[in-house]
This record gives sequence, C-alpha cells and structure tokens, in this order.
Amino acid sequence: MPSLRDLGESEVLERLKAERVAMTGVSLGPGDDAAVLEPASGMELVATTDAFVEGVHYLPTWSAPLAIGARLAAANLSDLAAMAARPRWALLSIGARADSSVESLVELQRGVQSALGRHGAGVVGGNLTAVTGGEWFSLTLLGDVAKGQAWRRSGARPGDRIAVTGFPGRAAAGLALARRLGTRERAADWEALLQAWLAPEPRLDLALELATRRGVVRAAIDLSDGLAGDLAKVCAASGVGARLSADGWTADPELDRAAATLGVDVTTIRLSPSDDYELLLAVDPAQTTESQAIAAARGIPLAFIGEFTPRAGSVTIEDRSGVERPSDERGYDPFAPRSA
Amino acid sequence: MPSLRDLGESEVLERLKAERVAMTGVSLGPGDDAAVLEPASGMELVATTDAFVEGVHYLPTWSAPLAIGARLAAANLSDLAAMAARPRWALLSIGARADSSVESLVELQRGVQSALGRHGAGVVGGNLTAVTGGEWFSLTLLGDVAKGQAWRRSGARPGDRIAVTGFPGRAAAGLALARRLGTRERAADWEALLQAWLAPEPRLDLALELATRRGVVRAAIDLSDGLAGDLAKVCAASGVGARLSADGWTADPELDRAAATLGVDVTTIRLSPSDDYELLLAVDPAQTTESQAIAAARGIPLAFIGEFTPRAGSVTIEDRSGVERPSDERGYDPFAPRSA
Repeated sequence: MPSLRDLGESEVLERLKAERVAMTGVSLGPGDDAAVLEPASGMELVATTDAFVEGVHYLPTWSAPLAIGARLAAANLSDLAAMAARPRWALLSIGARADSSVESLVELQRGVQSALGRHGAGVVGGNLTAVTGGEWFSLTLLGDVAKGQAWRRSGARPGDRIAVTGFPGRAAAGLALARRLGTRERAADWEALLQAWLAPEPRLDLALELATRRGVVRAAIDLSDGLAGDLAKVCAASGVGARLSADGWTADPELDRAAATLGVDVTTIRLSPSDDYELLLAVDPAQTTESQAIAAARGIPLAFIGEFTPRAGSVTIEDRSGVERPSDERGYDPFAPRSA
Repeated sequence: MPSLRDLGESEVLERLKAERVAMTGVSLGPGDDAAVLEPASGMELVATTDAFVEGVHYLPTWSAPLAIGARLAAANLSDLAAMAARPRWALLSIGARADSSVESLVELQRGVQSALGRHGAGVVGGNLTAVTGGEWFSLTLLGDVAKGQAWRRSGARPGDRIAVTGFPGRAAAGLALARRLGTRERAADWEALLQAWLAPEPRLDLALELATRRGVVRAAIDLSDGLAGDLAKVCAASGVGARLSADGWTADPELDRAAATLGVDVTTIRLSPSDDYELLLAVDPAQTTESQAIAAARGIPLAFIGEFTPRAGSVTIEDRSGVERPSDERGYDPFAPRSA
C-alpha cells in the first residue's frame, strides 16, 4: 500500500477526487480553487463544522478509517438534524502524516461520503495537508432550510416537554467498556453499546419529518457533550430551567447491564458526557402523543423525560419518591484533565 | 494568561464568540448547533477550505497569532479571488493544546476576522477541540458570485496571455531568508520579502473589479503552490500548454538581491514552490492594456509573462536568446521529504 509520500499530493488528490459522486446543486466540484454551488431559492443556508482528532475522538485500534469517516459525517449530520436542515454539501479538510497509506485516506473519505450520501449530501471540496503528529479530519457541512424554519436552542418555553431520541448514555458506556476490554475481539457481549459509540446514526430523517409539523418542536440540540450539559445549553439560550423525572426514560437493559458492570449509576451515565448524537427536543405539551407516534413509525424511541420550567438556569432531577436535587453532571470539556 | 485548561471549553467559546462582529446575511450566528445564513438570490455559492499546521505553515517564533490568523484568512480569500467571488461567511475549526493561552486563540481569531472584515466577510461559527501535538487551524470560507460568472481554471485558450499580479517568488525567498537568519531581529534588511511570506495581501479587490469587465479574464488560479505548478494545473484543466518568456516580469530588485544572497537563479525562485497568494490569469489578448491599467490604478503590478499554446500539457520557458526549454519546476508537495 503506497503512502502519501510515495504518491505525492497531486496523485492523492486525484484518487480522492475520483471517488466523489455527482450531485445536484453543484456547478463546479473539486479540482478548482473553490467549489461553486447552487442554493435553492427561498431557502436559508445552514453551516456547521466538526473535527475528529486521532487519539481524542477515535482510537485507530478500534475503528477502521471507513467507520471514522462515517462517524465524522454523523457528527455533522446530527448538527443539521438539530436545526431541522437538509444536508447538501461538505468540505473535508485533512491533516495526514506522510507515512499514512493512501488507501486509509480513500477509505475515510468513502465513509464520509457514504454517510452523507444516505441523506442526499456529498463532498464537494476540501484540503489536504501534512502533519507530523496526530492526524485530524475537519468536516464542514452545509445544508438548507425554509426561511425562518430552522430549529434553535432558544425556543423552549416553560411547560414544554423534554424529549430525547434513542438511548442516551450508550456511547459513553461503549467507550468505557472499550477502554476496559482493550481489544475489539473480546467485545461481542457489548455490541449494541459499542455500535452506539463507533457508529451512531444521526436522527436526520426523524427531524425533517417532525419539522413538517410546524410548532411541534420548539427548540432542539444534538447530544454530543452529554445530556445534562447540552440541556443546560438549551436552558441558557431559552432563559428557562428544566426538571428531569426519574421516569419516562426508554427502557435500556443493555445500558443497565453496562452500568452494573462499570459500577456506575445508570442515570449518571445518561446525563454525563457521551457523544450519542441523539436529539433533545422541547416539544409542545399538546403534541407529545403525535410526536411519539411519528418517531415510533420510524422505529425510534422518543422518551419524555421531564419539562422546562420558569426557573432560568436551574436544572434539577426528581427521583422516584419525588425528591428534587440539582443536576451536578457537567458537559464534556476536551481541555479538562481526563479522569483515570 | 489563563490556558484553555484553566478556563475550560465553554468559557473559551464565550470569549471567542464575544469577539465576533455583527454581519449582514446572518440569521443566526455562533452559539447554536449551526449557523443560519441568507444567500443573496440569483447568486451561486462559492466554498473553499484551507488549513494551517504549526511548524508546517507557520513558525511560532516568526509569527504572532494575529498574523497567523490573518494569513490563514488571506489563503482562503485568495481562493475566492481566483473565482472572482465575494467573500461572505467563514467557519473556523481549531485544534489547540490544553496548555495554550486563551489570549493566543483570541488573537488568532482576531487576525482572521480583521483580514476577512476588510473584504466584508466574518466568522459565523466554528469548532474547538483539543490536540496533544502540533496545533492546527482550518478555515472554511463561503462567498458568492453571479450565476455562471465564477472564474475557472478550465477557461484558458491558446493565444490567451498569461498574467501574474505582484511579485511571485517573494514568499519563498522570505521563508528561505528566515530559515537562514534564524531570528526576527536580524531581518530588517529583508522586510519586503518577509512581509510577502508572513503577511500576504489577497488580490480580491482587483479580481472583483476585473470580473466586472466580462470576458477579460478567461481562467484564473491563485499562486499558493508555486507558479510553475499552478500554471500546469491551469493547462491541465484547460487542455492547453504554456510558453513563458524571459521578459515581461515586473522588475523586483529585492528578489534579485535575495536570489544573489541565496545563490539561486531568480527565475527558478519565481517558478518554484512559493505561497505568494498572487493571481495567475488567462487574459484575452485584446485586453492586456486595459487590464494592466485597472491593476495599475490600484497600485498592483500586472505582468504579462507568456501565453497559452495549443500544445496540451507542455509548459516551456523561453530565454532571452529565444531558446525554449521545458519547465522542470514542480509545485509544492507537503508530503515530499523536505530538502535541507
């Protein structure tokens, strides 16, 4: 397998370019100074960017390049899901070592493209440069949304119900188990949790469908830093508080089993840093049944786990006996010293 | 000066956000899952991305963060200049060490914003993550251009004149002198060349003005990998060749002096890898005088250094006695082993 140094930049760029697929709305694709794109008229543009760093966001021993690329795309797609925006075009900026194999880069881009392609988007340009230390991949994703219809973090009102998709906490549990298990081979028992960590599925289709029912969702955020931290961001942006209940969570025997194995309370796992790429939504209380039915029709659990309150900035958790305590879980901070 | 670890991600993001300026065409700025932007109707979107890596694209001993940010913006602005597109919105993706000072990050973003702001653009979002090795900064810049009016690499025809702005080769000479000089203090003699390397000025205003005269410029590329390499890309995209003449270059006594000091032929410096962020244009031969006058009115030299030929893929250099030799200069390759 040739390395980037063997092949040289131009040839590597040619190989990456050759893999890209034709897309609508592209006047000029990769290979010029910039890409030229055709926004649909009457739509607003939605832009996000997310980066994965070797050893921080992925462990090469656990993920093949294809899966790393798909997960990077999922992180960006999830941001657009939280805006109810349709993904369209992406730019992939790569910092790679000269001794890396060309094949690994091609595979990573293939993973990005494949995940984007499932939602009608694709890579239209990028940048490739050399690093000597850890490799990194920064993806910028552009999408569109009808004017004024993007979901925001700031729309939650007191009384709105707090809904979450899927199984928050699984990604963190998967990562903790992977650290403990050491090798991929011993991990068969924990497949569902490892998949939640390694191959999350962004909730785009559900978001776009919910968005067609105007007013059902009043605020949204994607869960990439952990539920408590991300919920606090919605509260801050909306000027409200939140009360989480002990009930209402989607039953998750896999997570219960992991919590027992790891010796951690399951609620703590659900609220603490975890990049699940699920959605947290503020839902009109009159629309809980309808929104749950829409999600169920797609096979996606939508759990109502509490409500927004008028107490700005206060996030509390109510236990089964009705006792309320302040949430002390914090969001993920990449600069904090990592606990052992 | 607090470090990123001292302050934590949320507070650092708040500081970066506080520095951002209000801009037109932004429905929702930083602080949500994505930015929401309002493209002007009837315009195409132009998107480019470029990244700077510590030790590769900048040397911290030579450039303060403000200058690194401005140069990163210049690299992206130059790509839009080569498309004749108006810059509008940027997303800044950062990989920083936990022990870096918050101030250095704020300064770097200030440099990006200040350079973008001179051309009516600004930062509307981004990403911040932790690295343990070399830091990096990846900027995605979006602009717009009237439908079908973007300059491309593919428009050059045999007979079109090859024009270059400014003083190609100065950036490479500046870098070579910096490596030799070692410290900034001893560099006063070479200020013009060091500035070309450290603080290039993208040729956006000139590009946008030339673009108002339809048909004057038929193809364009920005010079970021070196003139010979970039010219070869235009030839490949346009299916033409090029013949460079020994005459026609803008006189550059500073570069002549550097060539003598470095013991390198001045033409070799001009053609070899150098990130000058000048423009190379294919100009309608009937419009050479007019385009030169437009550039001169802005104080920018525009030199006609050869012409495109029907010999696809052939790039030659004619010396003063009329002898033609093939160009053997290659473009910059970040993965090639660096010569001593």
